[in-house]
Amino acid sequence: MRYSPLLTDLYQLTMLAGYLEEGIVDTPAVFDLFFRHNPFHGGYAVFAGLDTALSYLEGLRFAEDELEYLQGLGLFRPEFIDFLRSFRFRGKVTAMPEGTVVFAKEPLLTVEAPLAQAQLVETALLNIINFQTLVATKGARIVHAAAGGTVLEFGLRRAQGPDGGVSEARAAYVGGVRSTSNVLAGKLFGIPVKGTHAHSWIMAFPDELTAFRKYAEVFPDTCILLVDTYDTLKSGIPNALIVARELREQGYELVGVRIDSGDLAYLSRETRRLFDEAGFPAVKIVASNELDEYVIESMRSEGGKVDIYGVGTRLATCAGEGGGALGGVYKLVRIGDRPRLKVTSDIAKATLPDRKRLLRAVATDGSFIQDLICLDGEEVRPGDTVYDPANPLQHVTLPREARLVELRSTVMADGVRTMQSAPLDELADRTADQLERLPQGCLRFINPHRYKVSISQRLNQLRLELMEEVQRGYGS
Amino acid sequence: MRYSPLLTDLYQLTMLAGYLEEGIVDTPAVFDLFFRHNPFHGGYAVFAGLDTALSYLEGLRFAEDELEYLQGLGLFRPEFIDFLRSFRFRGKVTAMPEGTVVFAKEPLLTVEAPLAQAQLVETALLNIINFQTLVATKGARIVHAAAGGTVLEFGLRRAQGPDGGVSEARAAYVGGVRSTSNVLAGKLFGIPVKGTHAHSWIMAFPDELTAFRKYAEVFPDTCILLVDTYDTLKSGIPNALIVARELREQGYELVGVRIDSGDLAYLSRETRRLFDEAGFPAVKIVASNELDEYVIESMRSEGGKVDIYGVGTRLATCAGEGGGALGGVYKLVRIGDRPRLKVTSDIAKATLPDRKRLLRAVATDGSFIQDLICLDGEEVRPGDTVYDPANPLQHVTLPREARLVELRSTVMADGVRTMQSAPLDELADRTADQLERLPQGCLRFINPHRYKVSISQRLNQLRLELMEEVQRGYGS
Repeated sequence: MRYSPLLTDLYQLTMLAGYLEEGIVDTPAVFDLFFRHNPFHGGYAVFAGLDTALSYLEGLRFAEDELEYLQGLGLFRPEFIDFLRSFRFRGKVTAMPEGTVVFAKEPLLTVEAPLAQAQLVETALLNIINFQTLVATKGARIVHAAAGGTVLEFGLRRAQGPDGGVSEARAAYVGGVRSTSNVLAGKLFGIPVKGTHAHSWIMAFPDELTAFRKYAEVFPDTCILLVDTYDTLKSGIPNALIVARELREQGYELVGVRIDSGDLAYLSRETRRLFDEAGFPAVKIVASNELDEYVIESMRSEGGKVDIYGVGTRLATCAGEGGGALGGVYKLVRIGDRPRLKVTSDIAKATLPDRKRLLRAVATDGSFIQDLICLDGEEVRPGDTVYDPANPLQHVTLPREARLVELRSTVMADGVRTMQSAPLDELADRTADQLERLPQGCLRFINPHRYKVSISQRLNQLRLELMEEVQRGYGS
Repeated sequence: MRYSPLLTDLYQLTMLAGYLEEGIVDTPAVFDLFFRHNPFHGGYAVFAGLDTALSYLEGLRFAEDELEYLQGLGLFRPEFIDFLRSFRFRGKVTAMPEGTVVFAKEPLLTVEAPLAQAQLVETALLNIINFQTLVATKGARIVHAAAGGTVLEFGLRRAQGPDGGVSEARAAYVGGVRSTSNVLAGKLFGIPVKGTHAHSWIMAFPDELTAFRKYAEVFPDTCILLVDTYDTLKSGIPNALIVARELREQGYELVGVRIDSGDLAYLSRETRRLFDEAGFPAVKIVASNELDEYVIESMRSEGGKVDIYGVGTRLATCAGEGGGALGGVYKLVRIGDRPRLKVTSDIAKATLPDRKRLLRAVATDGSFIQDLICLDGEEVRPGDTVYDPANPLQHVTLPREARLVELRSTVMADGVRTMQSAPLDELADRTADQLERLPQGCLRFINPHRYKVSISQRLNQLRLELMEEVQRGYGS
């Protein structure tokens, strides 16, 4: 799939035109992509979307009809259109692999490129990484709530546009949701696709029992029956039991039933009891209807007997407090030989300047202790004093027994990938592994444990110096 | 743009395979698309996405690689793959024009087609209409809050995937947001594109004043300066005033300043005062930063002096209570010669069966009084007794002085559009016109007036009969 270079904000292009006039299009620049708050008021995020982002960067070029459109806007000089005609992304990208557990303020991805190249790609990189990271995080939360139950994604019909459903299925997979109803996502990404029938199948036949029998006839070995078209306990379950017995007589087993409305915790318990009593303990119970991590956790705590959770709207749209969008930003941290800072009146919101490394302190048993952001080329080691990025006076000591692991590596150089894209399963496995190694309080949905992210002594110092310099410059 | 026929849920395909086995793929079916609750707990919705949906239906065909993928799933017989190979949508679509103000329970769009055709398209139709209608509604709400101020959409970077930003810009336009930062949406839909520069422009130069001067040099006649990179009142506004004076000396006028953080109501008042006092009353104030209808309304009620509202994340993702997704559904209402009903224990949630018409009672001054859903072929007239769809005992009289206007018409017959796609401006004009004719309490954000939607006597009767019939059938 081609991403148009016009998938950007106009101001990127007006800035590029300005950079060209000023003769600074080729000034080396470094931009960091990061977010300021963990999504969903949660304890972590799961990084996703890198492969999509790299494909976008590799394919970036303007087609003639796109240049004509820009020319027609009457904003740009012909020299700028010519500049765009030969535009390619030839920069370097440093990033962590997808499926890495990340936290607010950490540079997920860094672009080092001539200013114009690094600037133009801001909008699309943010669009891709923001959404996929948000969905992967939501997916991981829902899988955690399901506590071993299977989660199936089927949000396409309520997703925010066609791609909202397609790249969502990919990112949810990275988060741990390993099947989807979305056939296109299945084809594009090799995700297992699942699905049986809707209420319309039931309503296409004169009555529910006939509809169940017909479905079982066509799919005797993969039959899951939707039991709530008329009334789950009065009609759906009794009819499904009849079909379960008929299937068994023919040498098949009913795979499951799906409940899509009503009190799912109660209905799932009743359904379990009725099928168990009738000698069908293996029939799976699928539940759906506005599920998310909170509903699933509440159903489980109430003794709900659900084997498979079908999650749609609330996963696809990443609904919930602190959801809907990941507030990722992309900030200039260095230009030419000058480290740069975006300050505000609130130091907690000031950016972290310059080219950086991101390290994770890992205990001998593999568990994660804390993260550290330091300057590129700075030597850091266990035992060092490190600082709270929101408060330069607050410091701690990096645990002496920790190993410091580099979280990011070069994934693109001179505009070309330096590593193959990994299979999605590998990414989903990484997510699962990382979540296990995190302090388990970080996984809690309400008031999660706050995983520590520190900055190094030199980074803290550089930031303070730059803030002073900026403030001295006011009104000068 | 081609929409893949695989942009669907797997269960549509398994149902189609079942319909083929059962010999009912060609049974005439009628499906209604509707939603059950107005989005954002609001008083209305704005219908959008029809043109996109019709393009999808017209182009629907399976490519060989898509058929190969389906074959490889091991779920389908070769006869079914052959059936899909020649699959086309040849049905009829009845819908209201985009920009029509609509309400919960109303059939926005009706598909009449052979069962398999009407079934397969469910997911994509819902995906397209749900999202665009949601965004158009959010856009209309934000434009209403701005009360004559200009609204600019720039949510691409936080949108839910690339298309979440592109089709969102289109739908927001239908809702009344008549410019965007999204260049691709500009090219695809002819929407005016806007934008100036980001914080990175400022940070690419040694200091803010130099950056402002350079920008004014390149764009002297369209210059809007972003004033909050360092400190809005201490640095940004004083520097912008210097540049405003310098521009005037050269025969130009500074167009505006943009404030992107801090207390926007306060900063906009101060900025207005400073520019007015300096002799620049025409300089526009642009505000942005997590704006939505509530924030804008609150800023205005506090005397904020904003001319242009830049709205990003919260429009693009339709954030807010009752937002995130429009819960549109697509339900079978008739198959063969049998009207169909989906019941639940709650009558308010039972669907409205059979082929229907949607009428609006309009007063002599053009204002909207109430809507009425009746059966196709049923004669209704002012003075008739009509019923509450949530309560069959509750009835009112259709005002005698009203004109009954048909809201929907045939927009596609035999799979071919029967009307040209309208220019976006016409759709946005319709939205504006319809919102003016609505009882103004419907536009309120908190506890809006509930616009009445009734069902006709015969539709009420048919529904009650079908519900009884279904209940008699339980366990039979």
